[in-house]
Amino acid sequence: MHSTRRYRRYDPAMTIGIGIAGAGTVGGSLVRRLVEERSVVTAKTGLDLEVRRVAVRDLSKSRPSIPSGLITDDVMSLVSDPEVALVVEVMGGLEPAGAVVLASLQAGKPVVTANKELIAARGPQLFAAAAEAGVPLLFEAAVGGGIPIIRPLTETLAGEQVDRVLGIVNGTTNYILTSMADDGVGYEEALAEAQHLGFAEPDPTADVSGADAAAKAAILAGLAFGTWVAPDRLHAEGITSITDADFKAAEQLGFVIRLLAVAERRPDGVSARVHPLMLPADHPLAAIRGATNAIYIEGSSVGELLFAGPGAGGEPTATAVLGDVIDAAREHLSGSQVAPAIRVEPGDVVDFGKVDTQWYIRLDVIDSPGVLSQIAAAFGEAGVSILSVRQEGRGDRATLLLVTHTAPEAAQQAAVATLRSLDVVESVASVIRVESEEA
Amino acid sequence: MHSTRRYRRYDPAMTIGIGIAGAGTVGGSLVRRLVEERSVVTAKTGLDLEVRRVAVRDLSKSRPSIPSGLITDDVMSLVSDPEVALVVEVMGGLEPAGAVVLASLQAGKPVVTANKELIAARGPQLFAAAAEAGVPLLFEAAVGGGIPIIRPLTETLAGEQVDRVLGIVNGTTNYILTSMADDGVGYEEALAEAQHLGFAEPDPTADVSGADAAAKAAILAGLAFGTWVAPDRLHAEGITSITDADFKAAEQLGFVIRLLAVAERRPDGVSARVHPLMLPADHPLAAIRGATNAIYIEGSSVGELLFAGPGAGGEPTATAVLGDVIDAAREHLSGSQVAPAIRVEPGDVVDFGKVDTQWYIRLDVIDSPGVLSQIAAAFGEAGVSILSVRQEGRGDRATLLLVTHTAPEAAQQAAVATLRSLDVVESVASVIRVESEEA
Repeated sequence: MHSTRRYRRYDPAMTIGIGIAGAGTVGGSLVRRLVEERSVVTAKTGLDLEVRRVAVRDLSKSRPSIPSGLITDDVMSLVSDPEVALVVEVMGGLEPAGAVVLASLQAGKPVVTANKELIAARGPQLFAAAAEAGVPLLFEAAVGGGIPIIRPLTETLAGEQVDRVLGIVNGTTNYILTSMADDGVGYEEALAEAQHLGFAEPDPTADVSGADAAAKAAILAGLAFGTWVAPDRLHAEGITSITDADFKAAEQLGFVIRLLAVAERRPDGVSARVHPLMLPADHPLAAIRGATNAIYIEGSSVGELLFAGPGAGGEPTATAVLGDVIDAAREHLSGSQVAPAIRVEPGDVVDFGKVDTQWYIRLDVIDSPGVLSQIAAAFGEAGVSILSVRQEGRGDRATLLLVTHTAPEAAQQAAVATLRSLDVVESVASVIRVESEEA
Repeated sequence: MHSTRRYRRYDPAMTIGIGIAGAGTVGGSLVRRLVEERSVVTAKTGLDLEVRRVAVRDLSKSRPSIPSGLITDDVMSLVSDPEVALVVEVMGGLEPAGAVVLASLQAGKPVVTANKELIAARGPQLFAAAAEAGVPLLFEAAVGGGIPIIRPLTETLAGEQVDRVLGIVNGTTNYILTSMADDGVGYEEALAEAQHLGFAEPDPTADVSGADAAAKAAILAGLAFGTWVAPDRLHAEGITSITDADFKAAEQLGFVIRLLAVAERRPDGVSARVHPLMLPADHPLAAIRGATNAIYIEGSSVGELLFAGPGAGGEPTATAVLGDVIDAAREHLSGSQVAPAIRVEPGDVVDFGKVDTQWYIRLDVIDSPGVLSQIAAAFGEAGVSILSVRQEGRGDRATLLLVTHTAPEAAQQAAVATLRSLDVVESVASVIRVESEEA
């Protein structure tokens, strides 16, 4: 047989010291599994992972599940401690999380983080620091919780031209939207129920405003297209203005309403955004109910892929973090950078106003002859065609349910602005974008 | 800052010679993309991949899409050619595919294959050869075509205890089953339509008998549990005996019928099998229609995950193969083995007779007093409890639709054997296993 080069091996028996920043729901689950199931992980992976230090903000808070000898309130000690070979950041927020992640990478320590806000806001800087140090920065848990999505996008689809990613990436809002649609409850009641069940925070603003989903949309755009969408270039709308009448209209029109993160490749650049969307009832994402998350990918060769599962929760998220820790530990022991260095750089980001969208509009109007022609004229002037109109009479007033053809978002907005100025229009009660075949 | 170890880098500009065995649908798509989109792949990954040789069985067949200078009918030349650094096997079947895969690994060449039959039949030998040589053996396309499933199972879920994997892993049979259910067409007509549309081969035996799905079930069991289930330990049933009456009964009972690959961890070992299964209509896999494939994973910490997409076809499958090629090329250039070496070894495989199952049974009986007590006695003797009975009268004869509680498969089979011997039972028209909460 001809000559061959054998690959270098590493000694898997070497213990790898893990430092963890954050001991909340995810951090607590992770520490428990690394400590209690240490031998299970070793049997399954051949790696010996040992938690050496757990950094928290407040030492006075009791954490009975974490061995007290491990706890410190000096987060930056994870960077300087030579016993810590690999840093896990599960504290969330921009600081001190950002400082410990950056300093760890600069110190040549692999980093695993679940922090979507940090990756979305400072992705280019952190990926560059990881590439410069030649160490992995892994963040599978930052989007979709326990759903494997980062690795499929960056590895399995490495040779694919991805065209579009649609994600239900916020379980709180999906729970609220499906409760409102199925049980006919109002927004406040659905939110209170979500809070009672632990699906929503006491302060739900980040979820219901779309801010949480926006960070994930930015990350998905970066991974799918390599283009960084800065937070201020990302249009984000939440679900607080959707009413029971919209759910009834959606049902009549054959749609369901979901809050979606959208990342798509367009001829003039990349668009990333978050807004409610009416989806055809037979769309794969329409079947995603309750707090479940799902990501739907359209690729030019692979076609359509759907990934669904638990988008939050300590245990599922800790599973994704643990998978990253095992990957990063392997790479660390091998001494070679093998995982694809993620390159996310500023690029062409399309203004939302230039993106083609399709709209559902619910209008309260005075029911008199000529009303529809005035309304049609408003759309015509803006260059927007009407796909369908449905009238629901109420004596001398009426409600119109309009669906437009696709047109640039700015044109749709201009048409609606004109509608608001018409005497025959009492109110533009609701607008929701629509996903259909032509979009 | 304290001292740190920088990782070794490799020179990504080095060209990697690719040898491809097989130029059918998948091989043709792969060659086209590697040749026509070579610069696109380089721009996206930083790797320069060059097809150096394409081996086919029959040189006389015209392949206009493949540069003629690349084609050879000497498959083993991929092993000996020093210009070929990485071997892709997409010819299918056990030989000569098995010989070229094994010899390539032994020669220290990374191998990417889409060959489920080969991995299922000779997994332990091939994984051992890859581990011995320290080179990757990747096979993302072997299960679920373009759906990323191997990497999520082996990497993202590396720290998870997977309990069960259910897969719709054969598009042909899923297309036939959903056509029969939705359009009320018979098996022969649905098969002919699938053949006409290219979803079924002219000889559909491997698909409709469950053999194709069985190979995938064995692979899923190996990856999820590390236990090799030899082909002769794997119970496989197909779809040829399912009739229109079963679809009607399923609908009445709130079920849909799917052909499923099942791999599960049980206290006494691992079970892998393939058979039709009645799933509750709201089960995530019940929504998978037509030729789409889907894999559903239950983990003790992560909960339930669903992956769905195109399970076959040249372009989607080539996407999965290309992702593996990029991965293997990175590992090859780095000179380090980083991807988890897959360990699949003989272990405890549970006899299907000992696995708890739940059955739907359709019986044609003589409608006379005492029939039900004789039938109930047959189940009682076998130790099987009846969950529900539904009678459909037809004059002096009747059809009974029975659903049992869970009991060992052998007990269910014994009960049915007794039924067949009863004078009041004209025929056991159909038996299909049932998935319900208690299973």
